Amino acid sequence: MSLDAILSRIDADLPQATERLLDLLRIPSISTDPAYKAECERAADWLVADLRALGVAAEKRATPGHPMVVGHVDGDGPHLLLYGHYDVQPVDPIELWDRDPFDPEVQDTAKGTVIRGRGAADDKGQLMTFVEACRAWKAETGRLPCKLTFFLEGEEESGSPSLVPFMTENADELKADLALICDTGLFDSRVPAITTMLRGLLGEELTITAPSRDLHSGMYGGIAMNPVRVLSKIIASLHDETGRVTVPGFYDGVPELPDELRQQWQGLAFDHARFLGDVGLSTPAGEQDRTPLEMIWARPTCEVNGIWGGYTGAGFKTVLPSQAHAKISFRLVGSQDPLAIRESFRKMVTEMLPPDCEVEFKGHGASTAGAFDTSDPAFEAARQALSQEWPDPAAYIGCGGSIPIAGHFARITETTPMLIGFGKDDDQLHSPNEKYDMESFHKGIRSWARVLDALTRAA
Amino acid sequence: MSLDAILSRIDADLPQATERLLDLLRIPSISTDPAYKAECERAADWLVADLRALGVAAEKRATPGHPMVVGHVDGDGPHLLLYGHYDVQPVDPIELWDRDPFDPEVQDTAKGTVIRGRGAADDKGQLMTFVEACRAWKAETGRLPCKLTFFLEGEEESGSPSLVPFMTENADELKADLALICDTGLFDSRVPAITTMLRGLLGEELTITAPSRDLHSGMYGGIAMNPVRVLSKIIASLHDETGRVTVPGFYDGVPELPDELRQQWQGLAFDHARFLGDVGLSTPAGEQDRTPLEMIWARPTCEVNGIWGGYTGAGFKTVLPSQAHAKISFRLVGSQDPLAIRESFRKMVTEMLPPDCEVEFKGHGASTAGAFDTSDPAFEAARQALSQEWPDPAAYIGCGGSIPIAGHFARITETTPMLIGFGKDDDQLHSPNEKYDMESFHKGIRSWARVLDALTRAA
Repeated sequence: MSLDAILSRIDADLPQATERLLDLLRIPSISTDPAYKAECERAADWLVADLRALGVAAEKRATPGHPMVVGHVDGDGPHLLLYGHYDVQPVDPIELWDRDPFDPEVQDTAKGTVIRGRGAADDKGQLMTFVEACRAWKAETGRLPCKLTFFLEGEEESGSPSLVPFMTENADELKADLALICDTGLFDSRVPAITTMLRGLLGEELTITAPSRDLHSGMYGGIAMNPVRVLSKIIASLHDETGRVTVPGFYDGVPELPDELRQQWQGLAFDHARFLGDVGLSTPAGEQDRTPLEMIWARPTCEVNGIWGGYTGAGFKTVLPSQAHAKISFRLVGSQDPLAIRESFRKMVTEMLPPDCEVEFKGHGASTAGAFDTSDPAFEAARQALSQEWPDPAAYIGCGGSIPIAGHFARITETTPMLIGFGKDDDQLHSPNEKYDMESFHKGIRSWARVLDALTRAA
Repeated sequence: MSLDAILSRIDADLPQATERLLDLLRIPSISTDPAYKAECERAADWLVADLRALGVAAEKRATPGHPMVVGHVDGDGPHLLLYGHYDVQPVDPIELWDRDPFDPEVQDTAKGTVIRGRGAADDKGQLMTFVEACRAWKAETGRLPCKLTFFLEGEEESGSPSLVPFMTENADELKADLALICDTGLFDSRVPAITTMLRGLLGEELTITAPSRDLHSGMYGGIAMNPVRVLSKIIASLHDETGRVTVPGFYDGVPELPDELRQQWQGLAFDHARFLGDVGLSTPAGEQDRTPLEMIWARPTCEVNGIWGGYTGAGFKTVLPSQAHAKISFRLVGSQDPLAIRESFRKMVTEMLPPDCEVEFKGHGASTAGAFDTSDPAFEAARQALSQEWPDPAAYIGCGGSIPIAGHFARITETTPMLIGFGKDDDQLHSPNEKYDMESFHKGIRSWARVLDALTRAA
C-alpha cells in the first residue's frame, strides 16, 4: 500500500467527493426544530447508504429523538472510532443569507473556493473528510485501513438529549482504542491543530411574567410592572464592570492556565485584532485582566443567545407585555460544576424579582469542560502526520466551543478522544452564509489519510 | 321629536346594530402592517356606504397612507364633528386568542354579554355607538339632529402619519363647534366620564449592532461584545430605584396636579388593588411617591413595548447575535416636549455605548399631552346628559393613553374637543381577546342620543 497513491486518488476524486457533500447538504436536518424531524431521518438514511457502499455494516439506530448512525468494519491494527454529527443549526435570520441555505454550491470568492450552505463546516463537511479518506483508501487498497467504528449523531445542535443514554446502553459496542472527533478547527490556515481543551456548556431559558396578560401601555403604563424591564435588569447584572460574571460561586473550579501552556499560547501567532476585525469589532469584551486567547479558550463566559418580548413586528404597538424571555448560556472551564451554577443562577434571578413577578426556567443541556491527556503516543503520531500536510507544524490548542462528546468517550466508554478538524474562524458557523473552504475539505481528506496511515503504523 | 321614542328605537334595533358592528369587525384593518392595506381600504368603504345610507354625503379621501372617511350633512343648531378610527391593533400573540380575532361573536360571560373581536372596543364598537344613535334619530324623526361632520381615521394605531397634513390641508372643512371624540372609557361601569386630560406619546425604536454578523458563542463568546448585554444595560438604566425616568431633562414641563383636581380624584372610588388585581398584579410599579391614579393619568412614563435579538425559536442556538432591538415609548404630560426628550434619549443611549457598538434610531410618532378647557357650557350639558343614562353622575377624568387628535382639533381647526367613550378597564385593548361590553355598546348608543339632544337644545 502506498500513501502517495491514496493521496493522488483523493486529488483526482475531489469533484465527485464535493458532489456527494453537496447532496448531503441539501437535506435540511435541523435537529432543534421538530418540523424537520423527517429530514433528520433522511440525512441518517443517506449516511447509512454511503457507509454501506464502503463495505461498512452501518445502520440507523432509533433513540427517543433523532437516530444515531452506527457502522462497523473489521480489520487489523488499532480500533478507531469516528464521531461526527449530521444535524445542523437553524437558519434564521434567513433574510441575511445570500442564497437558500439548503441549496448549497461551490463558489469562487476573493478568499478562495468555498462550499456554501448550512452544515458545510458544522459538521457535514468535516465528517465527510473522514468518510472520503476511507473511500480513497478502499478504492486504492481494496480494504479499509483498520478496524473502524462510525458513530454519527443527529442531535448535537440541540443539546444531545439521547447521546449519554445511547452511549451508556451501548458502551461495549462503542469502545475503541481512540475516538477521532471531527468537529473542530485549524489554528489558522497554515497551522493544523489537535484540540486538547474544550469549554463546557450550560443552557438556560427563562420566562418572566408580570401582568397576567398583555396590557395597553397607555392605560397601565406607569403602574404595572413591565417584565422587559425586569429581564433587562437581570441581564445587565450578570456581568460586573470588569467583565466578570456575577453569578455567586461561578468561578469555583476555574483554574489558572498552567505556565507551560501559557508560554506555548504566547508563541502562537494569534492576531486578535484580525479575529475581531473580521466581524467588525476591535476591543476584546471579556474580563479585562485576561488575554484574548484565554478569553476564548480558557475562561468561562455568560452570553445571551436570544431575547424576546412584546411587539416585535413592523411599526409600533403600545403594548405593555405580559412576558419577557431570554435564552442564556454559560461556557465552562476546568472543574466548574454546571448543575451547581444552574442552581446558583436560578437563585440569583429569583431573588432579583420585584413583587408580582414570576420566573419559569427551562434547562437546555449541561456539560462540563474537558482537558485531554496527550501522553498517548498516538497524539504525537497524529501531530506529525498533520504537520506533513500543512505549511506549518500542528499545535495542541484550546477551543471556546463545547463538544461534550469528548468527555463522554473518556468517561462512558473509556476511549481516549482526539479532536482533529479543519474549520476556519470565518466559516460562519451557526450564522448566515456558513461555508467550508474547499482547501479545508480537500486537505482535510488528505490529512485523515495521513493520520490513518500514521496511526495504523504506530500501533 | 321625543327623546324617549329615539331611546326606545335604539333598544328595539340593538340586535341589528350588533350585526352591523360584527360586519365591520370582520374586516382585519390592521394599519401598522402593510400586508393589510387592502383591508383598511375595505373598512373605509364599508363606513362610507353605511354613512351614505344615513343620508350623509360621505367619501373616502386618499392620503399617502390609509384613507380618511369624511362625511357631511347639513342641519340646524350646532355643528358637531364626530371623530373615531376604523383601524385596529395587530393581533399577536395570536396563540393567546380563544378564537379568530376577525371572526367576532357575541358571548355570554360570567361578567355579562360581550362583543369579542379585535377592534370591538378600540375603536370600531365605540365609533358605531355614535353612528347608531344617528341612525335611530333619523329613523324616528326623518332627519339627523343637527349639522354633522363625520371624520374617521385609518392610521390611529400606527402613529397617524397622514393626520396632521390632512387636517391642515382641510382645516376649513373640518372646523366645527365641537369635536366629539369617541375613543376613551367610562370611569367605571357606574360612572360615565368626559376625559379632560390626556398623556402625549413619544415612540422610539433602536437597533444596537455589535459584531457585523451573528457569531458562534463558543468561538467568540467572552471576547466579542454581545448587543443584548448592551441593550439590557440601557433599558435597565432608564429608571432609577424609585421608579423615576432617568433621561436628562425628562421631567421638564411636568406639572404638579392642581389641588382641586387632586381632591376630585381622591373622591373617585378608584380601586387600584382591583385595577391591578384584574391583571395579576398587586403593587403599583411607578414612581414611589405618587398615587396610583396620578401614575396612570398625570405622570409621564417610559415603557419597553418590544424587545428582540438572537435566536427566539424552539430549542437552543448558541449564537452571539449581531443585533438587538427594542421599541420604547414615553407617555408625556403637561408641557413635556417630545422632540426635546427624543433628542435627550438618543444622546443618553449613544453615550452609554461601549466600544465597537453602533445604534440606529427610528422615531414612531411624537405628540404632546393635552388638558382641555371645560368652561364651554356644552361640557356641563353633556355631563348632565350622560348622568341621566348611567347609575352615577358623570366625572371629568384623566386618561393614561394618548389621543393626539384632541390636541390637533384645538390647534389646527380651533375646535373644542370633547372626549366621551364607553370602554371599560377590562376590555383588553391591544391585547388578545379584546371585547366590548354589550352594555357599553347599548348604553353608549343611548348616551349619544341623550348628548346630541342636550347639545342641540343647549345651542
